[in-house]
Amino acid sequence: MTRYPATVAQGRSTKVLTTRWQAGTARRRPDELIVEEPLEIRLDGHLVTTTMRTPGHDFELAAGFCLTEGLLAGAPVLACRYCGTGPAAGSDFNVVSVETGGRAAVPEARLTTATSSCGICGSTRLDELATRLGPLPVTEPFPGEVLASLPERMRAHQQLFDVTGAVHAAGASTRDGSVLVVREDIGRHNAVDKVVGRLLFDGRLPVTGAALAVSGRASFEIVHKAWAAGFAAVVAVSAPSSLAVRTASRAGMVLAGFARDGRLNVYAGEVV
Amino acid sequence: MTRYPATVAQGRSTKVLTTRWQAGTARRRPDELIVEEPLEIRLDGHLVTTTMRTPGHDFELAAGFCLTEGLLAGAPVLACRYCGTGPAAGSDFNVVSVETGGRAAVPEARLTTATSSCGICGSTRLDELATRLGPLPVTEPFPGEVLASLPERMRAHQQLFDVTGAVHAAGASTRDGSVLVVREDIGRHNAVDKVVGRLLFDGRLPVTGAALAVSGRASFEIVHKAWAAGFAAVVAVSAPSSLAVRTASRAGMVLAGFARDGRLNVYAGEVV
Repeated sequence: MTRYPATVAQGRSTKVLTTRWQAGTARRRPDELIVEEPLEIRLDGHLVTTTMRTPGHDFELAAGFCLTEGLLAGAPVLACRYCGTGPAAGSDFNVVSVETGGRAAVPEARLTTATSSCGICGSTRLDELATRLGPLPVTEPFPGEVLASLPERMRAHQQLFDVTGAVHAAGASTRDGSVLVVREDIGRHNAVDKVVGRLLFDGRLPVTGAALAVSGRASFEIVHKAWAAGFAAVVAVSAPSSLAVRTASRAGMVLAGFARDGRLNVYAGEVV
Repeated sequence: MTRYPATVAQGRSTKVLTTRWQAGTARRRPDELIVEEPLEIRLDGHLVTTTMRTPGHDFELAAGFCLTEGLLAGAPVLACRYCGTGPAAGSDFNVVSVETGGRAAVPEARLTTATSSCGICGSTRLDELATRLGPLPVTEPFPGEVLASLPERMRAHQQLFDVTGAVHAAGASTRDGSVLVVREDIGRHNAVDKVVGRLLFDGRLPVTGAALAVSGRASFEIVHKAWAAGFAAVVAVSAPSSLAVRTASRAGMVLAGFARDGRLNVYAGEVV
């Protein structure tokens, strides 16, 4: 059986003493900040990327990233491990290797596929994605009730937000509104990767028919990651970008935004 | 004289027809979305990175990115140009090369400096930055009034936000509160790079004694970029991260957050 060692618990928020300033008067008081630390992600030992993230659920993040960025391409995740020989305090838990036993291709140094001809644009990106991912399976129109209420239901799981007031969240829900998993991170894309990593570990990918909720806005990157995991719908608390809408349309995905107070705006796909 | 061709005007927001859903009732109505397109940045022809950005002020973004990421290292920017031979519509304006006449070092493929020993952490990042950038010059404590009011004064320049309700902004101000430049982008880091690029083109770097305001939160990346440009203070509308606070302290920079209604929280440095 594939085993995933438990993610080491690390501080995800930290207490500091801050100065509250108002009209020339300063008062010292405690505050709780979200922790941000680099995580180096490796695939079978090869460096893939370094992301600034909030510690916690690091294996989900690393595996989810490799999946949503197309690096696994069907290869199984056999194990995740911390690369723990660092000299600096805490650094033992800032490098994670995702192991596929060599079944995943060696990751290309993506920034150095340098000789891209002049011609990059949103449309070329979409063409590449569509070739790699293919269209999502056709599903029934998504229930608007589920999408409109998802951010609020996700909110109950945002413990870090309760403490710090400043951290993103992503959550997955079934078509009938059951929340599958919610993850928090200083980066919205990391929160999505953690959700996808959890679903991968649970053998739930592709999550056909499910919905992904994100705090804040929906960019190209978020919709692209949702597409890679097979989500049928993405709902954001704030606005989508132009390219996020085009990407969702191309994927055959519902994209909704401004989900607040039981209302939402639908930018791609159909809700009922 | 160094010349910078005017940035080509492109659509920064775009009209779409959206469906407003509430309690099972759907109404079609127009909406205005923020445009997101990839920009490939090159330095003397070498690929540096591809960032998802809102078009406009692309030369500022490209030059600012090269500066804040330490790629110029003192080399002068002689020109910026679009690499315009793309086949796709609009793609002519999605590749920018920053020209230093070969005086900047060839950018390393940063993702492939792969053999970093296990040991990455916030502290090692800070050590690297401190070695590269050195401490900021010591200045007088920053006026709290200026910092607390800067996001609001910046707000008057956020035309894209007025239209779309969902776009980040960054702005620079002098110590006495004069706004120097405000830029908007779907990415907060891009908005900062555009501000820094403008200051670079105007011969104002390092902007010793000046303050940088950002919408939203202040992460490590934002403080790092501000440090590279020589800002004496960073003020955010929302919270900073733990590493942002440590970075500001190390730089000798004021870092304030939650700047609203004439109040703010000071996390590093001193205000009066």
